Amino acid sequence: MAVGYNGLPALHPVSGVRIGVASAGIKKPGRRDVVLFELAQGCTVASVFTRNAFCAAPVIVARTHLQQTMPRYLLINTGNANAGTGDAGLVASNSCCEAVASQFACQTAEVLPFSTGVIGEPLPVDKIIAALPAAAASLSEANWEDAAHGIMTTDTVAKGVSRQFTLAGTTVTITGISKGSGMIRPDMGTMLAYVATDAAIVAESLHGCLREAVDRSFNRITVDGDTSTNDACVLISTGKSGVSLVSGSPEMARFQQILSEVCRELAQLIIRDGEGATKFISVEVLGGRDESECAKVAYTIAHSPLVKTALFASDPNWGRILAAVGRAGVTDLDLKAVTIHLGPVCIVREGGRDADYTEAQGQAVMKEDEITIRVDLARGRAETTVWTCDFSYDYVRINAEYRT
Amino acid sequence: MAVGYNGLPALHPVSGVRIGVASAGIKKPGRRDVVLFELAQGCTVASVFTRNAFCAAPVIVARTHLQQTMPRYLLINTGNANAGTGDAGLVASNSCCEAVASQFACQTAEVLPFSTGVIGEPLPVDKIIAALPAAAASLSEANWEDAAHGIMTTDTVAKGVSRQFTLAGTTVTITGISKGSGMIRPDMGTMLAYVATDAAIVAESLHGCLREAVDRSFNRITVDGDTSTNDACVLISTGKSGVSLVSGSPEMARFQQILSEVCRELAQLIIRDGEGATKFISVEVLGGRDESECAKVAYTIAHSPLVKTALFASDPNWGRILAAVGRAGVTDLDLKAVTIHLGPVCIVREGGRDADYTEAQGQAVMKEDEITIRVDLARGRAETTVWTCDFSYDYVRINAEYRT
Repeated sequence: MAVGYNGLPALHPVSGVRIGVASAGIKKPGRRDVVLFELAQGCTVASVFTRNAFCAAPVIVARTHLQQTMPRYLLINTGNANAGTGDAGLVASNSCCEAVASQFACQTAEVLPFSTGVIGEPLPVDKIIAALPAAAASLSEANWEDAAHGIMTTDTVAKGVSRQFTLAGTTVTITGISKGSGMIRPDMGTMLAYVATDAAIVAESLHGCLREAVDRSFNRITVDGDTSTNDACVLISTGKSGVSLVSGSPEMARFQQILSEVCRELAQLIIRDGEGATKFISVEVLGGRDESECAKVAYTIAHSPLVKTALFASDPNWGRILAAVGRAGVTDLDLKAVTIHLGPVCIVREGGRDADYTEAQGQAVMKEDEITIRVDLARGRAETTVWTCDFSYDYVRINAEYRT
Repeated sequence: MAVGYNGLPALHPVSGVRIGVASAGIKKPGRRDVVLFELAQGCTVASVFTRNAFCAAPVIVARTHLQQTMPRYLLINTGNANAGTGDAGLVASNSCCEAVASQFACQTAEVLPFSTGVIGEPLPVDKIIAALPAAAASLSEANWEDAAHGIMTTDTVAKGVSRQFTLAGTTVTITGISKGSGMIRPDMGTMLAYVATDAAIVAESLHGCLREAVDRSFNRITVDGDTSTNDACVLISTGKSGVSLVSGSPEMARFQQILSEVCRELAQLIIRDGEGATKFISVEVLGGRDESECAKVAYTIAHSPLVKTALFASDPNWGRILAAVGRAGVTDLDLKAVTIHLGPVCIVREGGRDADYTEAQGQAVMKEDEITIRVDLARGRAETTVWTCDFSYDYVRINAEYRT
């Protein structure tokens, strides 16, 4: 069960976005594995994708379509990533888009495809196309919860966040869902996440909003350091609330703040449900010369199998954190100035164990489900936070059994 | 048990090097945990150390001593790394050196200290000093096997390699031992390794020999990506064979070749005994523009928890290898030209699964204990190989239980 997961909250519909869900039997019969988003005419869409060079066919097709026109439909399948499938994968992905276009009498370029699941198997195009009428028949604004379930793969819980707030006297909604549990170390993109708002935002500003929200959320989480071939995050603005947001306005600033919170929560939900996770870890690095060196240190800690197994064991083996900081590649680090805290407890000061530290204090922090590791590099004002989880027997079990 | 380990071979003595072993009871009573090397007058020593910024006190002390004079004694303790111990750690390390100097009437700077074990605990100086007389009493040229056992920590087997060969009509010996099993991703240094030869080589050339040997051996292995605070590799030339080697000579070339083989075998022994390892993996990357991009790809594969758990499960889940290549950060990769082989079997060609590949072929390779993953980037002539192991339940168990 995901760490600190309190169930799926009420996911408010976003006027202008209808969602259909169906079972295509891609990997398991009966499982909801096809999700279709229908966006009303006039919606604006921004998206970011994985930077993995071996990106999946649907990522290539989606990027191409986005250059041609605004999307009207998003077609998502789980159970098959359509990655590492060469030219045949591109043909398969296009065929799915064509089927949606034909069903709804739109252009093929108005359909964006998304796939997630096992890499390297041919996409079962026929099964997906056969499920489209059922998906179309179920289209409804009230289907966000079903969609959150429909995009799951090794996820153990459905992930969604929803906010309603007032802008210029009108209620505005932001609702989003995400999926992901393993192969999680998004790079510029994310795992699959879909966020929609009924605020009206022009395409250029919308992309800026998404970029800012993603950089401190989906781009700051890691389960295992493995950047997927299929990561994608989509932000939809329907404008149906009647509220138009302009860059630089106080309303836009407030919208950005809440959007960033929604993305951060969605990203953290992925970590809470990280494969085999028993703990939710925040790695805060401050006092850096720039954010990039803070991120380097944070990721080195967050990727260290030794740190992650110690967290699993609730063992305050802080030497492993210190070793990770030391190998992170920050030059001219003043070791005597660096401090490391475990929760509120200072563990490292003056290049060694803090004089006041006791094992009992460290143990008390490590027993918690949610732990913050804070490193102060004491050489600047930059900071960043990376969220990760521990490394348990179950991570090995899940990934040794997956596929077989 | 280590993968493909055939027991400790006969370790030929190296004239001019005597070794003493004792039990100081640092972590466990009765365990051999102190090893003392005595080098005859006139020996030449070259060494490399970890680049971890939080390097251990003994690394700092050894570097300082090496700048002052040639060493006569190497003092190694296990059970305590004397790392993350601040100024007190430097004092402790120096005290041990002083005790050796006093015992053998040499200068303190002629003693190099080495420690390995848990990070952050105060070094039990008194216990180590109390064990020195016993170590001194046992000094003998025949003690390499005992030393190989004496430097072990979480290692399950002792590691040693020995070669005798003829140079200029005279028999020359190279004997080395190493230790290490977890926190293994040496960076410019290595875990602890000690190699000695009775060939005579001047200091400058000796350092070049060590550098060349280390770069393709200890600097090309990884268990978990965690660079230790204590890595050190020492090469001793006693000259007692009477054979003097000069840079650029054919004899030196042959010596270098055999030294490199010895170091490669010692490094591979560490991987064979990697924490929880059930498989020994060679990741060969060729066709790169330079060695650095080959190493980047090789390490990305070798560090991927998803690849490592698939190897543990003997699952030819090649999509994970492809995803790792894609995220390795090589720019302008021509995906259609890249090929990936699992042993002799081509798995990826033309950006997807090779047309002739069958799951049965992949399965057959994955069932072996020793597996080669070969990636051809097809854009240059550089190549490199990284050795690693799989990621099993036992890695988690060992590192969740260690210390507690």
